[in-house]
Parts: sequence; C-alpha cells; structure tokens
Amino acid sequence: MDQFAKLPGIGQKTAERLVFYLLKRSPEELMEFASALAHLKDKISVCRECYNYSESNPCPICVDQKRDKRLLCIVSKPQDLLVLEKTSEYQGVYHVLGGLIDPLNGVTPQQLRIRELIERIKRYRAQEVILAFNSDMPGETTVLYLTKLLKQFPNLKITRLAQGLPLGSDLEYTDEVTLTNALRGRREL
Amino acid sequence: MDQFAKLPGIGQKTAERLVFYLLKRSPEELMEFASALAHLKDKISVCRECYNYSESNPCPICVDQKRDKRLLCIVSKPQDLLVLEKTSEYQGVYHVLGGLIDPLNGVTPQQLRIRELIERIKRYRAQEVILAFNSDMPGETTVLYLTKLLKQFPNLKITRLAQGLPLGSDLEYTDEVTLTNALRGRREL
Repeated sequence: MDQFAKLPGIGQKTAERLVFYLLKRSPEELMEFASALAHLKDKISVCRECYNYSESNPCPICVDQKRDKRLLCIVSKPQDLLVLEKTSEYQGVYHVLGGLIDPLNGVTPQQLRIRELIERIKRYRAQEVILAFNSDMPGETTVLYLTKLLKQFPNLKITRLAQGLPLGSDLEYTDEVTLTNALRGRREL
Repeated sequence: MDQFAKLPGIGQKTAERLVFYLLKRSPEELMEFASALAHLKDKISVCRECYNYSESNPCPICVDQKRDKRLLCIVSKPQDLLVLEKTSEYQGVYHVLGGLIDPLNGVTPQQLRIRELIERIKRYRAQEVILAFNSDMPGETTVLYLTKLLKQFPNLKITRLAQGLPLGSDLEYTDEVTLTNALRGRREL
C-alpha cells in the first residue's frame, strides 16, 4: 500500500483498494506486473533524435520514412507528443524539450534541450517548426524565447498551435482572452 | 415564490430564499423592483438594424460613428454579442440571427434573420462577415449554411472565429478534435 500511495493521484484509500484487488489475482498475473515494473527502465529508453520515450532507439516515429523530417513539432514532454499522435493529423517529427521555461519554478532555457533543437534544425534543414505548448504562462514564455532565438534561421517558418474556441464551447461562457484570440485569429472560409 | 420558481435556474428552495430576503426590504425598494419589471418591455426594444436588445433604436453600437459598418459580426443571440463587446477587441457592427440552424430541435433557416442579413450586407456594402457561433452542432450547421449562401457576394470575405486551444489549456487533457483544429489552424509567428 505504501508503494502505491507514493504514486501521483493515488491516496491511502485508493492504494488499499488496489492492493485488495491484487490479493485476489493469480500469482502469475502478479509476477507479470512485477516483471514489467522491474524492467521498465531497461526496456524504455529516450530516443536520441527526438528525446521521446521509446522501446527502440531511434524511436519508430524518427525512423518512419513517411514522416516529413523537415517539419518539427516542439513539445514540452512525451505525454503531449502522445496526444498529438492520437489525432493522426500530424505527419512530421517531434522534438521533446524536456520542460518549459518557468523562472518562478527555477526552469531556465539552459535546462531544456534547446542546443539539441538548434542542431537538429540545421541537420534536417527544417522548413517549419511548430511550437505546441500549453496555453499558460510557461508556454507563452517559451514561445517568446524560441521565436526570438529561431529567427536566426531566415528560411525557417515558425508557427504555433491555433488559439481559440475549443470543441463544444459556448460563446456565452468563454473567457475574454480566448474570445480575443478567436477574433484576432479568425479564419477565412 | 411561484413567480421566482418559473425563472430558469431557480428552484423552489432558491425562490423561498429570495422571497424571505425581499420581505425584509423596504416598500420603496420593492416598488423600484416591481416598476423595473413592469416596464421592462416598454423600455427595451429590439434594434431595427442589428436586432440586439437596446433602450434606444437603433442601438448605441449601430449609431456609433467609430464603428466600421462594412464589418459585420453574426451572432446567434444578444448574450453572445455582449461577451464579444466585453473583449473591447471588435470595432465593427453586429447582426443577431435569433438562433442557430438546428433541425433536431425544429429550427430551420427560415426562422432566422437571414433575409435581413442579406439586405444589410447589400445596403452596407459589407467587406467582411465574421461567423461567431458556438463550437457545437448547430453552430457548425449554421457556418456551413451561411458560407454557401454568402458565396453569392464575390467580394465579401467570410471568416469564422479561430478554433483551437483556449486560455490556460493543457495539451495533455485537450480533446483530439480541438488539437486537430489547433494544428490545422496554426499561426505563423
């Protein structure tokens, strides 16, 4: 129970429930779970190209011939890459920064994989980088920083995810900043 | 209590609370409230230009010389106009359609102020119409219908509010449709 309770979002009560559930399972099932846990770090490595977690190195996305290597989508963490992949919309490759610039929490540009990004942009002759960050303070700070930095590449197109109305939104209950972004970014039909 | 309980979002319990509150107020205060209610419909009319509610006719927005009359923002209802006004971003005028096309709930284009819209586009020589609807089924249906209809004006720019990430959104918890819209609508920096 103590082990489960250390995990994020799992309290004492949930930990109890999980352990009681496991007590009813077969020894084989428990062994399988234990083995997956024990070997997690052996099997999963960080892709040397994009820095995503992967069982192979480079990861399947980076070796995929159908992916456009001149299109780089920059994300903060592997979880964000995963949700973008789920859309099946994106056909380029990724670059995991390893965080967002957040001076209040002590995260400076030096701690992120920005040198590696510059190196990849040069090596891939990237045509476009898409800044795909959360729409919050660290996200905005990182957009500003990277935009300024990447302007050194005159032929590189720098884009960011559209800001506006999410699916199912009701204008009446939409905050003013989102509405302002939606108005400014309005799209021709 | 019965009168209050008829209002949207007010149940029997809230109605009780409101009436007990009113019982403690002075007769003058009650009279003021009663008078405001009684004269609500005398004082507020529908603007003959944009169909927004207003105490004057045409409404203050339609008579404002600083407003660009060749820019028309089409909204479903007066509440949506109000939130757009709060952004202080928009400098054109509005057109309140009076609903959105919603066949499942029996709302057809004939019930909306579309004839009036066409007439205003011609009279104002509108250069752009912005479709500012909720990001849901009736909103999308109305966008499709109006886009097709308004293509008859070759010099009219038809735009819609940007769809994408709202303020404060976390990529990890963003739905796939919103992410796809954010990727497709990405903006150059």
